[in-house]
Order: sequence, then C-alpha cells, then structure tokens
Amino acid sequence: MKVGIIGASGYTGQELVSLLIKHPQVELCAVTSRAHQGKPLSVVIPKLGNIGGKRSFVSPSIEELTKSDIELFFLALPHGTASEYATALLEAGKKVIDLSADFRLKSDATYQEFYGSEHPASQWLPKAQYGLPELHDLSWEISHLIASPGCYPTSIIVPLAPLLAHNLIEPSDIVVNSISGISGAGKNATERLLYCERNESAGVYGLPKHRHLSEIEEQLSLFAKQSIILSFHPHLSPMNRGLCSTISVKPQDSSSQEEILKCWESAYNGRPFIQILKEGELPETGRVLGTNRIDLAVEADKRTNRIILCSAEDNLLKGAGGQAVQSMNLCNGYKEESGLL
Amino acid sequence: MKVGIIGASGYTGQELVSLLIKHPQVELCAVTSRAHQGKPLSVVIPKLGNIGGKRSFVSPSIEELTKSDIELFFLALPHGTASEYATALLEAGKKVIDLSADFRLKSDATYQEFYGSEHPASQWLPKAQYGLPELHDLSWEISHLIASPGCYPTSIIVPLAPLLAHNLIEPSDIVVNSISGISGAGKNATERLLYCERNESAGVYGLPKHRHLSEIEEQLSLFAKQSIILSFHPHLSPMNRGLCSTISVKPQDSSSQEEILKCWESAYNGRPFIQILKEGELPETGRVLGTNRIDLAVEADKRTNRIILCSAEDNLLKGAGGQAVQSMNLCNGYKEESGLL
Amino acid sequence: MKVGIIGASGYTGQELVSLLIKHPQVELCAVTSRAHQGKPLSVVIPKLGNIGGKRSFVSPSIEELTKSDIELFFLALPHGTASEYATALLEAGKKVIDLSADFRLKSDATYQEFYGSEHPASQWLPKAQYGLPELHDLSWEISHLIASPGCYPTSIIVPLAPLLAHNLIEPSDIVVNSISGISGAGKNATERLLYCERNESAGVYGLPKHRHLSEIEEQLSLFAKQSIILSFHPHLSPMNRGLCSTISVKPQDSSSQEEILKCWESAYNGRPFIQILKEGELPETGRVLGTNRIDLAVEADKRTNRIILCSAEDNLLKGAGGQAVQSMNLCNGYKEESGLL
Amino acid sequence: MKVGIIGASGYTGQELVSLLIKHPQVELCAVTSRAHQGKPLSVVIPKLGNIGGKRSFVSPSIEELTKSDIELFFLALPHGTASEYATALLEAGKKVIDLSADFRLKSDATYQEFYGSEHPASQWLPKAQYGLPELHDLSWEISHLIASPGCYPTSIIVPLAPLLAHNLIEPSDIVVNSISGISGAGKNATERLLYCERNESAGVYGLPKHRHLSEIEEQLSLFAKQSIILSFHPHLSPMNRGLCSTISVKPQDSSSQEEILKCWESAYNGRPFIQILKEGELPETGRVLGTNRIDLAVEADKRTNRIILCSAEDNLLKGAGGQAVQSMNLCNGYKEESGLL
Repeated sequence: MKVGIIGASGYTGQELVSLLIKHPQVELCAVTSRAHQGKPLSVVIPKLGNIGGKRSFVSPSIEELTKSDIELFFLALPHGTASEYATALLEAGKKVIDLSADFRLKSDATYQEFYGSEHPASQWLPKAQYGLPELHDLSWEISHLIASPGCYPTSIIVPLAPLLAHNLIEPSDIVVNSISGISGAGKNATERLLYCERNESAGVYGLPKHRHLSEIEEQLSLFAKQSIILSFHPHLSPMNRGLCSTISVKPQDSSSQEEILKCWESAYNGRPFIQILKEGELPETGRVLGTNRIDLAVEADKRTNRIILCSAEDNLLKGAGGQAVQSMNLCNGYKEESGLL
Repeated sequence: MKVGIIGASGYTGQELVSLLIKHPQVELCAVTSRAHQGKPLSVVIPKLGNIGGKRSFVSPSIEELTKSDIELFFLALPHGTASEYATALLEAGKKVIDLSADFRLKSDATYQEFYGSEHPASQWLPKAQYGLPELHDLSWEISHLIASPGCYPTSIIVPLAPLLAHNLIEPSDIVVNSISGISGAGKNATERLLYCERNESAGVYGLPKHRHLSEIEEQLSLFAKQSIILSFHPHLSPMNRGLCSTISVKPQDSSSQEEILKCWESAYNGRPFIQILKEGELPETGRVLGTNRIDLAVEADKRTNRIILCSAEDNLLKGAGGQAVQSMNLCNGYKEESGLL
Repeated sequence: MKVGIIGASGYTGQELVSLLIKHPQVELCAVTSRAHQGKPLSVVIPKLGNIGGKRSFVSPSIEELTKSDIELFFLALPHGTASEYATALLEAGKKVIDLSADFRLKSDATYQEFYGSEHPASQWLPKAQYGLPELHDLSWEISHLIASPGCYPTSIIVPLAPLLAHNLIEPSDIVVNSISGISGAGKNATERLLYCERNESAGVYGLPKHRHLSEIEEQLSLFAKQSIILSFHPHLSPMNRGLCSTISVKPQDSSSQEEILKCWESAYNGRPFIQILKEGELPETGRVLGTNRIDLAVEADKRTNRIILCSAEDNLLKGAGGQAVQSMNLCNGYKEESGLL
Repeated sequence: MKVGIIGASGYTGQELVSLLIKHPQVELCAVTSRAHQGKPLSVVIPKLGNIGGKRSFVSPSIEELTKSDIELFFLALPHGTASEYATALLEAGKKVIDLSADFRLKSDATYQEFYGSEHPASQWLPKAQYGLPELHDLSWEISHLIASPGCYPTSIIVPLAPLLAHNLIEPSDIVVNSISGISGAGKNATERLLYCERNESAGVYGLPKHRHLSEIEEQLSLFAKQSIILSFHPHLSPMNRGLCSTISVKPQDSSSQEEILKCWESAYNGRPFIQILKEGELPETGRVLGTNRIDLAVEADKRTNRIILCSAEDNLLKGAGGQAVQSMNLCNGYKEESGLL
C-alpha cells in the first residue's frame, strides 16, 4: 500500500517516517513539510542517514495529494490544521490516520468546551474511529478516518477502560498523575522548552483541565456506560521520551488486586503491545523506551482501601507514531507487530 | 557555637558541611566519616576547594566526640546508626539535630510497623522535637534532640498541616504524588542508581507503604486531631536534586481555593522559606534549586470538586541539610535565614 | 545459523541480544549469564518484553557450549575472561566474535605493556581478524576468530586509516579528543558511575595511556606502514549513549580538505554504515543514536595549517554490538545491513 | 557602592543578580531588562524568591542610568549592544564592567576579522582592562572600563598564560578541546537549543574559527610576547552548566610536568579561585559547579612528548558573573572572595 505523511517536521512526524520507511508492507511515497519542502529527509531527520535515500520533503499541496495514487495518509499536523487536510483527503476517497486531537472526540460540545472554538468539520466527529487498537475493533469498513490517540490518553485509558467496563472500580473517584518526557510538548522553539529551562527541573502543569482530559473522559465514559470525570495532573520531567501514569482508584466492594489483574489479562490476552508486569515489578519509562509497548502494574493499598494502577510507554511510539502504525496494520490485515519490533 | 557533623560522606552530609563551614555564627569543629577518616574534606567534597582549608575527616569515635567541647552535633548517618550516636551524645549533655528517621516518630508501635524492628532507644521518641520550624516552635529548652524531617515529609506536611488543622479539607481522602531527584536515594553504589539506569527513565516505586509515610501520617494526625491515612506514590525522575509533590484533596463543604490561600498565608506569614505562588504559577523544582525554600500553589478543580496542592523544594536543602540549619538558627536565637541565603 | 551470546548482563551484551533476537537470518539459541542464569531474558533486558518469549539466561558452562550445535558465539565478557571461552570454543570448531579487547592486538609485547600481564592465549593473537568491516576483508576462511573493536577505536580508526594509508596526513602529529556517553564505562555498580556523580559533569579521564590506545595505534600503524603514536584524551559526558571524536592532524604538504573528502569517499564508497557529512555539517552523537552508522566530517583550519576530522557513532551499536553483527553478516554472506536497520 | 546591572534576562545576567543582591559591600540599585521591565525580579529569576524583595526590572534608559547615582554598571548585554551603553556610561563618569566581548580585544583589525564589521567604539579598545584578575592587575585608576572574559577564554588562558610567559611550552603547537554546558549558548529560543535537541547528544561546533578565539589568541600573544595561533574545538554536552578544556601542548626541550606545576604554583600562589589538583586527579565540571573556582591539572605524555593541560570551571561563575564580581572586589579594595563563597 502506498502511504504518505503530512507534516513531518515535529517529533511525532519524524518517528512516523522512521517507522514507515522500514515497514515491510507499505511504500512511503510522500512526506510533506511546509517548513522543509525540498530538503532531503535525512537533513531534518538525521538518524535516517542513507535509509532515507534521495527522498526529499514535498509540498503539502492538498490538491496534489488528493490527486496522487497514495491510498493512506498519516497526519502529523498541529491540532486545527489536521481537520482541513483530513476532510479534503477523505472526500477524495483517501484513508486517513490522524495523529492530532481533531477527531478524537465524539461530542462537538465537549470539543468547544475544551478547545474554545467550534469544531471546523463536526460532521466527521461521529464517523472517526478512536484508534486504540486494543480496545476498539478498527476497520476501514467502519470508516476511512482513524483518530489516533496520543500519549496521555493511551497511558490512562488502557489501564482504566476494562476495569470500568467490568465495574471493578468506582467511577467517581479517580486521580491520575502522569509524568511526561519533554518531546511530548512538541518541537516548538519557545523559552520554556529550552534545554536549560527543562533540565534539572520537574513540575506539574496544565491544571486543572488539560485539553486531552476531554478525550480521556469521553472514552472512559463509553466503557463505564456513565459519565466519568477525573482528576488529571500532568508533569514534565527532564528526559527526551517516555511517559508514565500512576492512577489512584477505589475498588468496588469486592474487587481486589487479583481481580484487576485477571480483568486486564482477559481484556488484553495475546495483545503483543501490552505487558502486565509480575507482582512486585513496577513500570518505568526506561524499560519501554524504543518499544511500542505499554507496561501495566497494579498494587493494592489496604491502608487506604485504594488501588494504584501504573503504566509506562514511549510517548512517541505507543503514545503516537507506533500506535498509528499498529492501527494501520490491523485495518490492512497485516500482522499487528509488522514494522514495530 | 562549636558544632560537628557525624557521617558526612553522603549527599546530605556533604551539603551540611558546605552550609556549616560558611555559617557566620558557628564553628564547624569536627566532620566525621568512617570511610574517609584522615582524608581532606575537599577530596570527598570537591566543591569545597580551599574553603575546606586543611581540615580532614576525623574518626567517628563516640568516646572522643562526647568528651570534646563541641556543643551541637548534626547526625547525617544511616537510619539505625543515628540512634546509637544520638543517645550517647545526649547523655553526655550534647545537643543533637538528627537528620535520619530514627527519632521522627512519637509512636514506638508505628516504628515497628514501618521499620520492622523494635526501636533501639524508644525512651527518646517522645522527647524528640520534630524539626519542621514553620510548624513547631523549636527550642533547646524543650529538648536537646531535634529530629529533622526529610524531603518527602517536608513537601507534604507543609502544604497539608494548616489545612487539616483548620478543617478546610476532608481528612480521609488525600492522594499524594511526589517526584524526587536521584540524590534522594542516597549515595549507594547499587546498579539501580547507576547513571544509565536512571537517566531517561521515570517511574513510581516503594508502593504502597514507603517508610516515610509513617511520619507524614503521624505528623498530619497531630494537626488534624484525628488519624490520617493517605495514599503516597513516590516517583524518581532523572535529575540530581529537587522534589515536588502534587496532592489531591477534597475541600470541606464551604472551603475554596481562596480560603486555602488565606490559611497558608496566615500560617506561614513572614516565614522566609515558604513562598506561596501567585495564581497561575505552579511550583517547579528548577525554580527552588539551590535555595532553602519551599514553593506552594493551590488550584481548584471544580469539575471533580477536588483541590490540588502543589509544592516544590530542593531535597538536599529544605528537604535535608538546609532545614536542619534553619532549626539550629531558631533554637540558637540566630536569624532564621542565617547562613541559608 | 545458530548463534549464542556469552555474557549478556552488561550494556553491550543486552544490545546484542536485542539485535540477534530480531535478526532475520540467525537463530539465537543461547544467552548466558553467570549472574542471571535461570531468569527470563526480559527481566534483565526489559525492553525485550514478549519478544524475548519464554527464553531464559542459561549457564555459561564451557563444556555444554562446546558440545551444543551452536555454530557461532558472540563473547560480551570482561577482558580476560573472554580469552578463556574463545580458545575453548575455537578448539571445539566453533566460530567466535569477541567483543572484548582480548584478541584485538597482534603484538604480545604491546598487550603486556598496556594490560600489565602476559596474554593468556597469545598463540591466537596473530590469527584473529580485527573486525572493522569497512577496513578489513573479513572471512571465516581467514580465521574463526574475529576481534570486534569497541567504541573509541572505531571512532578514531575509521576517519584516520585511509588518510594514513594514502599519506595525506603527517603520521607524527595526531591529537585525538573523544567524548563518550556513560554506558561506555559498563554496568558496574561503582560510586563513580552513580547518576548523581556523572550527571551535570564532564571531564577527561584515563590520561595519558588509555588501554584502547594500544589497538588504535597498532591498527593505524598497519595502514600507515610505520609506527603511529598519538595523543588520546577520552572524556565522559552525561548521556547514556553516543561517542564523538575530534581529531587534529597536520596535512601533508599538498593535501587539502577536498582531498581528504575524496579519499574517504573512495575508501568508503557504498558502505551503508559510513556517512560523510556535507560541508558545513558536523557530527553529533544525537544524530546517530540508535543507528549502526558512523558520521564523518572534515574541516580545514588554514590559520594553524591543521585539519580537523570529526566522527560520531552510537557506542553500543557501531561501537560494539552493531559492528559485531555487521561482521557476522559479511562473513556469513548476508546483506551487510541485515538486522541492523 | 551603588551598582546596577544592565540586561539581566539571560543566564549570565541572572547569575549576576544573585551574586550582587547578596554581596555584603555593594547595593544593587537597578536591574534593567527591555523584555521584562516592570516585572518583579523574582518572576524572571525564580530562585531569588523573597530575597528579591519588591524589586522590579527597570527600563534600560541610557539617559536615566547616566543621571542616576549608581557608580558602577555591569553590562550583561548581547555583543554589539554593550558598547553603546558602555561608551555613554563611561562618558558620564561611570565605571563599567562589561561581560560582553565588545571590549576584550585590543586590536581593531582582529575585531573586524572575527566579528565581520568595524568596531563601533574602537577608541575605547586600548583603554579597556582585560578582566582576568589572576593575570592582570586591575585598578579603576588604569581605566573605568573592564572587559570581563567569558567561559572559553578563562578556561584556556588561565592554564596557558604563565607557561607561555615563562617559555615552558612551544608557542606554535597548541590544540585546545573544550566541552561546554548548554547555558554557554545563552537563553535564545531557537530549535537548536531545545531540550530534546541537546539532551543525549554531544558534538563539536563553530569550527574552525569560533569568535572567542580572537581574544584567546590576543591575550596569549601578550604573555608569549609573540603571535600565538591555536587550534580550538568547542563542544556542547548535555548539562546546564560547566566547562572543561583539555589542551595539548609541546614542552620546550627541558620542561617537565613538575616545572609546569611549579610555574602555575608560583603564578597563582595564594589566589583563592585557582586550585591546582594533586597528581592523579583530573578536573571535572561537576567538582566546581556553583563555585567561582577553576581547577587545573597537568599530565605528561612521554610517548608523544606532549603535555596535557586540563581545566574546569562553572561557566556562569568563574566563566562569567563570578569573575566580574571578583574584578570589582579587587578594584574596589574588597576581599577578593567577597560575596563569592
């Protein structure tokens, strides 16, 4: 299958290029970047080296892209810009995996609440598939538009969704603390993201209503079959990549650490990119760096009658580009791990 | 006043040496280290350079120390060893500021529960003053033994204690997430603390019952006048120093963000080492690095009806050596900031 | 081909496991570790996850290994221990790629000078092939023993060897400065390698006669057809991986930046893992992280009439495990890049 | 003495504010910043906290500053802007310590060669004192303008100057490699200085003619009494602060490691901020972090008949703000260490 990447100058886009250029079953035919068009890929993504061959960034002309014989486009564009490309490509019959947040919500109202403006293409919101492949059966027959979730939602929805679906935890008392590497904040030349500003410093930000909270709650509400509102405390830590979440929940009366493990094992049985750690082990981002895996662990705290759920992932792989490729693999009928090991 | 430091080979001890050697009102007369005795201070603590002069580490002989004319000893010893020195020095009429956890609990039973053995000198437990100088009126007349709290307790007790004392938050629903720099784990040559193991990795550890939780709960219970049990999730992040805590609490019916700010301002009014941040600002460890300060902020989350309390400190200063010096300053009648700016 | 790895508890061994477990043309049949035998691979090498399957570390019994049907062994053992395994395996008809320094020298006398003891199996020294595949034609017909060079030698020999062979630079005036990430120092639980000791610190070490200087000089002397003695200043920098070298040389009378580029291009034409940067670009370790590539650049300094050669590589790939796999690929007749992209 | 700082939004300016606000003998009366005027100091320099009191950044109006009763100004302005302020202030009778490179050269021609434009106030070039207080006798009587050298020059001139002055090393064969922390590149919101671009990466830059080479060579030529041209290879390493230089020189016929040590000891005898390390010890930036010290070591390499000189400093203290304060201390007749321990 011929694929293209639109907007590959950020960290997510670059990771996608690395993945798709080596993918055994697709041909990466176009990589666009407004800022870098005409430059060889390897100048902007140095780790490619000669793997990039003589390829260069091309112009992101919507007209040319819709006319091309490329069948599937990955959008690694800023929120807002993505929907413009997505609708044009979808209308031209293309398939789209969008890594922005533009189509991750079902509810137009929630979009307005969290993003502060009307959705530019709200007719597409109900059609998009939320691309968490371990929780949703993805298929091109359902829709040509997959909204691929990012790092925070993945790290939080994966541990919580099956527990809420099986009523093992109280839906009203969930406190999530996450720690993200700096690449999660994007490749923006702002003072706040300078090396000397972020190195040797850790702290919380985006309180109390981080934008991605909207999709986390909407997705979890679907699984819980009731409205979920949760506390979310994202932090930055001085490291390039990696994201971990530590989630405090209340068990329903009878549920225990063992039942939670069993629930996870049954929900994620055989899934290659979810690893449930053995008792006594706890997730660390360093353990999953460079993999498409999310590691999970659970620990009961009898003193407070709470349960602690822990997850860790590489924010640019399972939390971004890797997950998008995983969704493509499944929709295209490839092996789930194809190009991801 | 002549002072000594017993056990100065770890990160806390070294920081204490740096502080006391420059302190304008005390004379640092002895610095002991079993491992380094005979070596010049500046060999083990290179940043001292010639400030260390010709001083060397001396033998930690209890007999010699008790006979010396040193009036006050700081103990930067491993938990367990500290109590042995403390009792001998106290019985010889010396004053002691202990930076270990040995005398931080009032309850012998809690000690046994969390430390797994009987306390070696439990008769001293009720006599020790818990050295959080913004919350306890410290004085040599009360006792010659100050148990100086460490980084986690300081970052958690300072924001919570006045709120619990004034009944502004529910005592039964407190979830604490903390992120610590690696020096908090001490200078132990173990594989887990190697550069390549900790760099580019973040994760939770010590679940669910970290040892220092015992003193956090005991102290908070004193202020709340009821038993406090809380959830505590400590994390390590790749940085040398710094510690931040993000604490999720439920307000009592009527209490608001403004009341919490007012409560803090009244409790900590004029205290030089507590800074309450302006609305919209959040603590980051990088902002307090190299200072004896703890920064506080509060953010209400109306959606979940919870309140988020945030703190940040330098774990080796306000979370260790700086705090011990601050306690000495107050007990000795010096300016609180003396030697700490 | 069935392959095994002996000694896979260090950083190099772990990288080798990751590479060989995914290699499309070999079967990784045994991974030994004295410290970890019996443990699943994924416990010690967490990034493997379920890629490691149910494999565990096995005992490093020389007797069993020689009797097995494994054809090729990679030795990731400490210097000294490697030769013991190598000789036994070679005598049993096995092929060996040794990643230690044990067989990298031809000269017994140089070994004694730099390692301070007699070589334990000096009869094998002249038989070993020095495994720098861009400079030596490797073949199992020449010998069953390949001594795979490490990070410093690779980063220094690759830029210098062709220039010395073609008499473009003065052989007597070479000053090499290298900066290595901390994994180059191995996974040893020593105080010097603790996170807090290495973070936020850079400095030179091992002056003036680092052990690996011996093989660098011996190899370069072969290419120069005269004895090469050089100045070597290795530094540590706070990063997990990566190594760069900045080499100051004097050009022979007529030689210029262009001639050096031409010489490199002719020597390394078509080699997939050597990238000569465009004018104005300089190597950085971050550009080659996670690749088996070495990047090269040259810059003339007309003011001093010197030439600056620069290289960068990932010390655990092109500087260790990747290079060993590359040598295997070539000797086995596989594609040079097999399993390395 | 009343002092002011002009341009305090960068890393050097902020460090100066921290130093001067605590200095026991001066009163910091004005801190200017075009970008931040009106904001409290502690908003931009968070580590100040309430030490900053209610002070705010003021407007950098040359007119107002010249009319004020401030006697001495520190300029922490970008190169180019500094000379504009300096000349106006000097003409108004003020004293100036300029931390930019604007007045560090004596030669107008060299300025043009390295900076690519005519010097805007070349009549002041011969009058400025080069503020390396261990090498030049500074005095307000000589001139009211001190050009305070930065991190690279300090780390290179301090070890080399006395050796060239005493003819202990060959003046024509000097190769300098330096490694700098990222704050050396300033607080500029450019992509190259983003956390994720610099973390986990090291490399050389600015070849072959870094701007600061001009002053290094000019100063060394003064000491050598002949023209010195040297090779200079600056590198960036992922750390906030710190700078080390490793310098390869050829000894004059008879000179040895011992003579070099003796020469340094005689040149720097009693100077509080130069520490000559004991044999076997090598400088590391981590050892001098937070100090105004420069550490020196020498190692002979008999095999190449070269000598290796090593230095390390904190680039923002001895390599910037600390050195400027040290110069003020000496000119004002204060203790050299005043406010710097």
